Amino acid sequence: MKSIYSEDGRVFIIDQLLLPGRLETVEISTVEEMRDAICVMRIRGAPALGLACAFGIYLGVRNAAVADAAAFRLAVNAAADRLSSSRPTAKNMAWACGRIKEFASKYYFTNTKAAAADLLNAVEQLAADEAAASRSIGLYGAELLSSRKGILTHCNAGALAAPEFGTATAPFYVMLERGLSVNVYVSETRPLFQGARLTAWELAEAGMNVTLLSDSMAGVILRDGLANAVVVGADRVAANGDAANKIGTYSLSLLAAAHKVPFYVAMPFSTLDLDTPNGSMIRIEQRPPEEFSAFTESPVTHPAARVFNPSFDVTPAGNITAYITEYGVAKDASELPALVDYGRLRSV
Amino acid sequence: MKSIYSEDGRVFIIDQLLLPGRLETVEISTVEEMRDAICVMRIRGAPALGLACAFGIYLGVRNAAVADAAAFRLAVNAAADRLSSSRPTAKNMAWACGRIKEFASKYYFTNTKAAAADLLNAVEQLAADEAAASRSIGLYGAELLSSRKGILTHCNAGALAAPEFGTATAPFYVMLERGLSVNVYVSETRPLFQGARLTAWELAEAGMNVTLLSDSMAGVILRDGLANAVVVGADRVAANGDAANKIGTYSLSLLAAAHKVPFYVAMPFSTLDLDTPNGSMIRIEQRPPEEFSAFTESPVTHPAARVFNPSFDVTPAGNITAYITEYGVAKDASELPALVDYGRLRSV
Repeated sequence: MKSIYSEDGRVFIIDQLLLPGRLETVEISTVEEMRDAICVMRIRGAPALGLACAFGIYLGVRNAAVADAAAFRLAVNAAADRLSSSRPTAKNMAWACGRIKEFASKYYFTNTKAAAADLLNAVEQLAADEAAASRSIGLYGAELLSSRKGILTHCNAGALAAPEFGTATAPFYVMLERGLSVNVYVSETRPLFQGARLTAWELAEAGMNVTLLSDSMAGVILRDGLANAVVVGADRVAANGDAANKIGTYSLSLLAAAHKVPFYVAMPFSTLDLDTPNGSMIRIEQRPPEEFSAFTESPVTHPAARVFNPSFDVTPAGNITAYITEYGVAKDASELPALVDYGRLRSV
Repeated sequence: MKSIYSEDGRVFIIDQLLLPGRLETVEISTVEEMRDAICVMRIRGAPALGLACAFGIYLGVRNAAVADAAAFRLAVNAAADRLSSSRPTAKNMAWACGRIKEFASKYYFTNTKAAAADLLNAVEQLAADEAAASRSIGLYGAELLSSRKGILTHCNAGALAAPEFGTATAPFYVMLERGLSVNVYVSETRPLFQGARLTAWELAEAGMNVTLLSDSMAGVILRDGLANAVVVGADRVAANGDAANKIGTYSLSLLAAAHKVPFYVAMPFSTLDLDTPNGSMIRIEQRPPEEFSAFTESPVTHPAARVFNPSFDVTPAGNITAYITEYGVAKDASELPALVDYGRLRSV
């Protein structure tokens, strides 16, 4: 299951708004269609959003009749700017745009068709790198989590959000491959129910034991020891280790601390933002109030009630037991740069 | 606005399942109809459930052709047993049944019609006592809360849940009467959205500033100081002060503690259960999984996902800053019996 992929030079995404009712792929043909898909969250999840930007840049180049190298780079940069500005919080979007812009800046241009094909290759390489990162996070995470009775996760940091195995869920898929039983508690994740609609769906589909709960039940699940570890993904991790993730993650980190339950953030390095010193400088997207007040046929509240709807919150580094990355486990954010270096050395 | 009342010997309730779309009263004619209304939560909220039992007993007597005092008491007890067993957690149900059974045990029976009328008077007296308790909670609570910038509440402990002003919301109504501005943050309260559907609706209808949030956003609201006090109701308070209330209250109490925000439980004495030593002995109702998995037209999760759906949780006394009762504010559960005595003295 790939939330975004190319076939014969065309780009497809799973329309995540239709899940779990229908598993349907739709073709995305232009930069603006990709931008819309990102804005309305047909595709979401930080690493998948990075890939959406990369594939979207390809669409921008494919559709442009660029005459020379300068026009090529202009088309790449214009598409990148348009796509990376569609949602503000996920670092992976700027990261993926940066990778593709770097490719374009060094590219020896001959004609549009060849440039589009070569750029698509670069995008596919980036997707393959992210898939490898997911599997690696799964291997490191499985070591940490295999002995846990139950594991609580929030929102969807699953295969729908990141290629291969997801980020937070990658350890679960690895444990499943190894024949271990995996009991996952999934908070439904208001307002868009990504936990219920996406995570519970994909993990149950894979054959794991999944229990759905409301976001408000996490305290009791942790108090009673039903789950004795928490793993979440991240949209952006600042240099000091503060992690922006789906709204509710901050509360969950406090509830984990109150019950002395380890709280892990699973993240590929594409999520790390060393240019942002700490979480207070991460821009938090406010989503439309209708996500709350008009998601059912009948009204769900009084028209005069205001709605507070930040899409993310920031969990301070102090509440995070460890970061599970593709290069290993860091107990503290200060260990992350060393892991990057180790990863670079290894990949030489 | 009364969630339950009688008129010309007939009993009516607001059908709370229709709110906020429609404000509609329906007549309840039999014990079984009242039991059904309680089970499916057309009427809910601990004090209102107490009144539902009391009015339901009246319906049982009114419809029975009782021949003598023994048959009268039998009809009262049978209706009380049937009604008080419909939901397990709210203490007020047993309390109201006890009050009406006590009335019946001392009643000099002549004929069914007179007995039903006299019993209805007793029920009305009980409703008036609860309304007075609500107003009194409001007066004591307003003293505590008037200086607060914003107040967070959970679920509905409002006028729909308790006659007059509700319990947790009673201070807000009193503050509004006094011309004070009231900023209330209401968590929507999954799975049945009583915060969004009922609390936000009734407080906005009354003219307060209401902001709706998902249950998962409480941590951020408290961290940022938007709300600097929490007030909730209770379904049963044990002798040691442990309080059962809507699922999510326990988490909220931990989040309040983490941010050094006072956490108040507003409760009439009809909610206090001195026979239950502590919260671990309070029976917690499990609600049907469909409340989660089938509340919209399209499926919200995978059919194989299990659902965890306790209706309540228990907040330990240690997490509760004070109890706001009709007889005053108790900083500790051990002060509650003295308040009862004070109340009894005052009402002599």
